[in-house]
Amino acid sequence: MTDVLAHAVRVARGAEPADLVVRGGRVVDVLSQRVTEPCDVAVVGERIVALGHDLRGRETVEARGAYVAPGFIDAHVHIESSLVAPGRFAEAVLPHGTTTIVSDPHEIANVLGVAGIEWMLAASSGLDLSVLMMAPACVPASPLETAGARLTAADLIGLADRHARVLGLAEMMNYPGVLAADPDELAKLVAFAGRPIDGHAPGVVATDLQAYLAAGVASDHECLTADEAREKVAHGMTVFLREATNARNLLDVLPAVTTANARRFAFCTDDRVPGELLDDGSIDAMVRMAVDAGLDPVTAITMATLNAAEHYNLRDRGAVAPGRRADLVLFDDLRAPRPDTVLAGGRVVARGGEHLGDQAPAPGGVGPTMDVAWRDTLELARAGDRVKAIGLIADQLVTTAEPRDLASGAGAGGAANGIAAPQPDEDLLRLSVVERHRATGNVGHGFVTGFGLRAGALASSVAHDSHNIVTVAADDRDAMVAARAVADLGGGLVVAAGGEVRATVPLEIAGLMADRSPHAVAAEVQRAETAARDLGCRVGAPFMALSFLALPVIPSLKLTDHGLVDVDAFALTDVFI
Amino acid sequence: MTDVLAHAVRVARGAEPADLVVRGGRVVDVLSQRVTEPCDVAVVGERIVALGHDLRGRETVEARGAYVAPGFIDAHVHIESSLVAPGRFAEAVLPHGTTTIVSDPHEIANVLGVAGIEWMLAASSGLDLSVLMMAPACVPASPLETAGARLTAADLIGLADRHARVLGLAEMMNYPGVLAADPDELAKLVAFAGRPIDGHAPGVVATDLQAYLAAGVASDHECLTADEAREKVAHGMTVFLREATNARNLLDVLPAVTTANARRFAFCTDDRVPGELLDDGSIDAMVRMAVDAGLDPVTAITMATLNAAEHYNLRDRGAVAPGRRADLVLFDDLRAPRPDTVLAGGRVVARGGEHLGDQAPAPGGVGPTMDVAWRDTLELARAGDRVKAIGLIADQLVTTAEPRDLASGAGAGGAANGIAAPQPDEDLLRLSVVERHRATGNVGHGFVTGFGLRAGALASSVAHDSHNIVTVAADDRDAMVAARAVADLGGGLVVAAGGEVRATVPLEIAGLMADRSPHAVAAEVQRAETAARDLGCRVGAPFMALSFLALPVIPSLKLTDHGLVDVDAFALTDVFI
Repeated sequence: MTDVLAHAVRVARGAEPADLVVRGGRVVDVLSQRVTEPCDVAVVGERIVALGHDLRGRETVEARGAYVAPGFIDAHVHIESSLVAPGRFAEAVLPHGTTTIVSDPHEIANVLGVAGIEWMLAASSGLDLSVLMMAPACVPASPLETAGARLTAADLIGLADRHARVLGLAEMMNYPGVLAADPDELAKLVAFAGRPIDGHAPGVVATDLQAYLAAGVASDHECLTADEAREKVAHGMTVFLREATNARNLLDVLPAVTTANARRFAFCTDDRVPGELLDDGSIDAMVRMAVDAGLDPVTAITMATLNAAEHYNLRDRGAVAPGRRADLVLFDDLRAPRPDTVLAGGRVVARGGEHLGDQAPAPGGVGPTMDVAWRDTLELARAGDRVKAIGLIADQLVTTAEPRDLASGAGAGGAANGIAAPQPDEDLLRLSVVERHRATGNVGHGFVTGFGLRAGALASSVAHDSHNIVTVAADDRDAMVAARAVADLGGGLVVAAGGEVRATVPLEIAGLMADRSPHAVAAEVQRAETAARDLGCRVGAPFMALSFLALPVIPSLKLTDHGLVDVDAFALTDVFI
Repeated sequence: MTDVLAHAVRVARGAEPADLVVRGGRVVDVLSQRVTEPCDVAVVGERIVALGHDLRGRETVEARGAYVAPGFIDAHVHIESSLVAPGRFAEAVLPHGTTTIVSDPHEIANVLGVAGIEWMLAASSGLDLSVLMMAPACVPASPLETAGARLTAADLIGLADRHARVLGLAEMMNYPGVLAADPDELAKLVAFAGRPIDGHAPGVVATDLQAYLAAGVASDHECLTADEAREKVAHGMTVFLREATNARNLLDVLPAVTTANARRFAFCTDDRVPGELLDDGSIDAMVRMAVDAGLDPVTAITMATLNAAEHYNLRDRGAVAPGRRADLVLFDDLRAPRPDTVLAGGRVVARGGEHLGDQAPAPGGVGPTMDVAWRDTLELARAGDRVKAIGLIADQLVTTAEPRDLASGAGAGGAANGIAAPQPDEDLLRLSVVERHRATGNVGHGFVTGFGLRAGALASSVAHDSHNIVTVAADDRDAMVAARAVADLGGGLVVAAGGEVRATVPLEIAGLMADRSPHAVAAEVQRAETAARDLGCRVGAPFMALSFLALPVIPSLKLTDHGLVDVDAFALTDVFI
C-alpha cells in the first residue's frame, strides 16, 4: 500500500506517468459548486491523484470536452428489487453512472437471516460497483407475519463488527415500535450509536418525529411532501429523495431543497424493477428529473455524490479530487446527464450504456427456500356481506382502506355457496398470502381494488418483507395454480389463467433473485406483465405493486400470512366489516 | 442505555417531563440556515430530545429570547499551548461556549511518547468538555532535532484502536516527507485510511498540494491567503480557519468563504495562550471576528459547529436537534455572540463567563522530564562575519531569513574575543536550543531579529515540537541562568537579567503544563511578559513566539538542538554565511 501511495505522490508531482488519464473533461466540482475549464484527471490504481493540464498517462480516456462528474451514489437501495444477483445488478447500474450503492439486504435477510446477508456480501465482493451495506433493522418487519428469520441487535452489530462494508443500521421501519419504546428495537439503536442509522418514517412528523430522532435515527427516504422533508431536515435528518418504481416521491419533495439546505439531501432508488433500471436508469434518472424540475445541475450532482458520501462518512469518494476514488462519470449534457463512459476504481467499466467485462457466476450456498404446507384451496369462507378491501394507489407504497359490498346473488361470488369470491367486474380481487418458510400452513386472506384483473391470477415469492407467496386473483383456482407454480420454481413470478401457467420468471436465489443478465430477466418480467395485461391488469408494474401489499409497516391496510393488518393501529383486523 | 432511550422517546412524545428545559430561546438552526421563533428545548440525560412549545421539565433554564446555538467545536487545538492541564483548559473554554475540541496532544507526545498521550486521555476523561484527540503524526516533527520520543505508524493506529476518543491522524506536518514519498510517513497515512487525517501544509499549492492530497490528507489549517484556501477546498480539503495567538490567519483567509463552499470550512484556535483564551475567548472570538468582517452569522455559527462535526463524523453533535448532544450556548447578540449560559451534555457548566463546578486534580504519573547535560556556556564561537538570522514576523509562524553582519569592533560582540555575541543595539539576539530529554549535550546556536530585547534573556521548555529548552538572549550569561532555572523548575518559562531570575512560570507537567487555574497561570505569564517588556522585548506574546522558533516544519528558518534549519531545503544550514 505504501508503494501505491509513493507512486501516487510521484505521479501527482509529475515525476512519473499516471496509470490512466481522463483527458480534456470539464470537471463538475461539487466541492466549490462550479464546473471547471477542460482539464485532465490523472489516476493511479483506484484513486485520482491529480487534476491539471497535459498530464502524462500510460492509458488515456479522451473526454473531448465532456463533463466529468464523481460516480453517483445510491443512498438506499434493495438490490433484490432488481430481481437479479448483485453482480448482475452492477451490470445494470454501472452504465448509468452509479458506482456506489448503500444497500439494505433486508429481503434476503427475511428469507435466510444472517446467512443471506453473508451471501450478499460474498456475492458483491470484488465487483466494479462498490456495494456497501446496512444491517437490516427489521427482520421480520413486524410481529404480524411469518418470516424466514429473526435478527436481533446482537446479530446486527455482529455483522457491522465483522464486515467493514456494513456501515450501520438499515431503515428502522418499525417506527411504531420505536415510538412505543419497544426495548428490542431500542437495543438495536443503542448498538449502532455513533454509526449511521437509517430511518423510515412515512408521514411521521411533529412530536412523533422528534421521538424517532431522539432514539438516534439519522435519515429518511419516505417523505411524501416538501413540508414533511423541510421538517425532517430542520430536525437533523438527511433526507433521501426517492423515485422507486412504485414509490415516486421526487417531484413532490423536491421543492423542499434550497440553496441553504441542499447539503442535507441525497438521492435513492430504494426499489427499481430491472426494466426501469436498464431503460430509465438509476440515480442518473433522478438527477435528470430533478434538473428538469428546476434544480441547479451542480446542486443535483452534489446531492447524487458528495452529500451521500458525507452522510455515510465515505471519505474516499464523492468528489473529483486527489486522493478520492477514481469513480468518474462522463456525459455531454449537464442538464440531462446520460453517462457515456463510466470509470469505477480507476478502470473503464461501462461505455455507451453497456457494461464492459465478463460476469462471474454468483456464489452458491443458497439452498431451497420453499417449504409450504398447502391447503386444499385459496378460497375464503364468507363471514359477512361487506369487506375492507385494500385500495392500491398508483406509484405509491401507501394504500387506502376501501369498504366494499360482496355480491348478494346466488352464483359464483354470491352468498349462497358460502365463499367470499373475487368480483372482477367491480375490480374487487382476492388477495392471499401463503406462508412459505416453515410449512405453518398459514394463509392470509383479503381483497384488493385497483389491479383490474378480469381473469386468472398473479403470484410472487417476492412479497415484502417476509417474502411469503402473495397472490392476486380474479379466480381462486388460478390463485392456487400460480402459487404452486411459484413454489415449484423454487421462487419466482407467475401468471396463471384457466388452470394453466401463462408466464414465469424463475427467481431461484431465495425466491428473490436470478443469476441471469438483467436484460434477460427484464424481458421475462415484460412477458409476464404482458400476460397480466392480457388478463385485464392495468397496473404499471403489477408484480412490484403486488409485492408491497404484504408489507405491514406502510399505511394503511396490508395483508400478511397472519391476516389483514390495520397499519395505523399496527394490529390484525377482520376482513369482514 | 435502552432505559435512557425509552425515557427520551416518552419525553419527546410529551408523556413524561424532560430532565431539563431551556425555555424560550431562538434556536440557531444550522441545518436549515435560519433562526427560529422562541421555543423550548427539552433535554434527557446528555441529549436533546425535542424542540417545541410549553415543554415540561424538572429543571428549567430561562433563555428569555436569547439565541441558542449548538456548542462550538474547536477543530484543531493543542491543549498544551494553554499551559494548563486538560481539566484547567476546560475551565477556560467552556465559559466561551466551546464544548468539543479535537485536540492534538503532540506536545506532550514529543516529551513522553505514547505514555504522554495516555496521560492526556486520562486527564481529559469525564470532563464537561468533550475532548477528542487525533494521534500525533509527527513525533518528532522532523529528523533534524532530538525529541523525547518517536512514534511509529503502529504506535499511532494502536492508540486509535484502543481509544474511541482518538478519531484519526493529527496534522501531518512532515509534508516534505510525504512529498518525498518517505515510507515511514506514508505508512502512517495508510494505517489511518478511511479515518480523518489532518494536514498541515502552509503555502503548499499546485502539484505539491495534489500529491499531499493523493497521499490521503483531508484538512488544512495553515492557509495564509484566500487563494490558497480556495485551491485547497476545490481539491477536497476541509479548511480550518485559524486564529492562534501567534498565527492570525482568519481575516486573510475569510474571503475564500462563499455561500457555495461554506460547508467546507470550520474554525480552529490551534495554539492560544491562557490569557487570550480567558480574555478574548476561543471559537466564539473567531465567530465574532468573522461576522464583524462580513460573514453571515448563521454561516459562521454553522462553520463553528455542524461543519466541524461533519468533518470528523461526530454524528451526535453540531446542531440543536433531537438525538444530538445537549451542548448549547446561549447569547444575546447574534452578530457578536458572547456566551452567557453554556450547557454541555445536558448540564449547565458555565454562566456569565465563569465555569461552574469544582475541578478535580489532574492525575499523576508524569515524572521528571528534564535531563540536560549542561555545557559551560551558551556562547557561540565566532566563525565568520556574517550570519543568517531568523526574522520573526509578528503574529505568524513563518519566519524570514535575514542576513546580518556581526560587529567588527573589539568589544563585547566584536570579532576580537572570538565570540559571536548578541548585538541588542541592532536587535540581533542570540537564540539557543538546549536538548533536555536525554542528556545529549546538544546545543543549537543561532540568531534572531524582531524580539527587541535590550538586556537579559528568556528561556522556555515549551519549544515546538521537541520541547527542548529554547533561549533568546541579549546576554549569553543570562541565557544560561534562564535555561538552568527552567530545568530547576522541572520545566517552565523564565526571564533572567543581570545574572538573576526575574520571573518564572513553573510548568511541572512534562515541562509544558501546570495543574493550576488558567487565571493563575495567565497572571504568571503576564508577570513574565511584563518582565520581558521591561527588558525591551516588543513582541506581543514573547514566550509563544519564542516557542515556535524551534519548529523546523514551518518556513523558512528555524533552530533546533541540531542547529539552524533551512526549512525550504529541509536541511541543516550553517549560521555563518
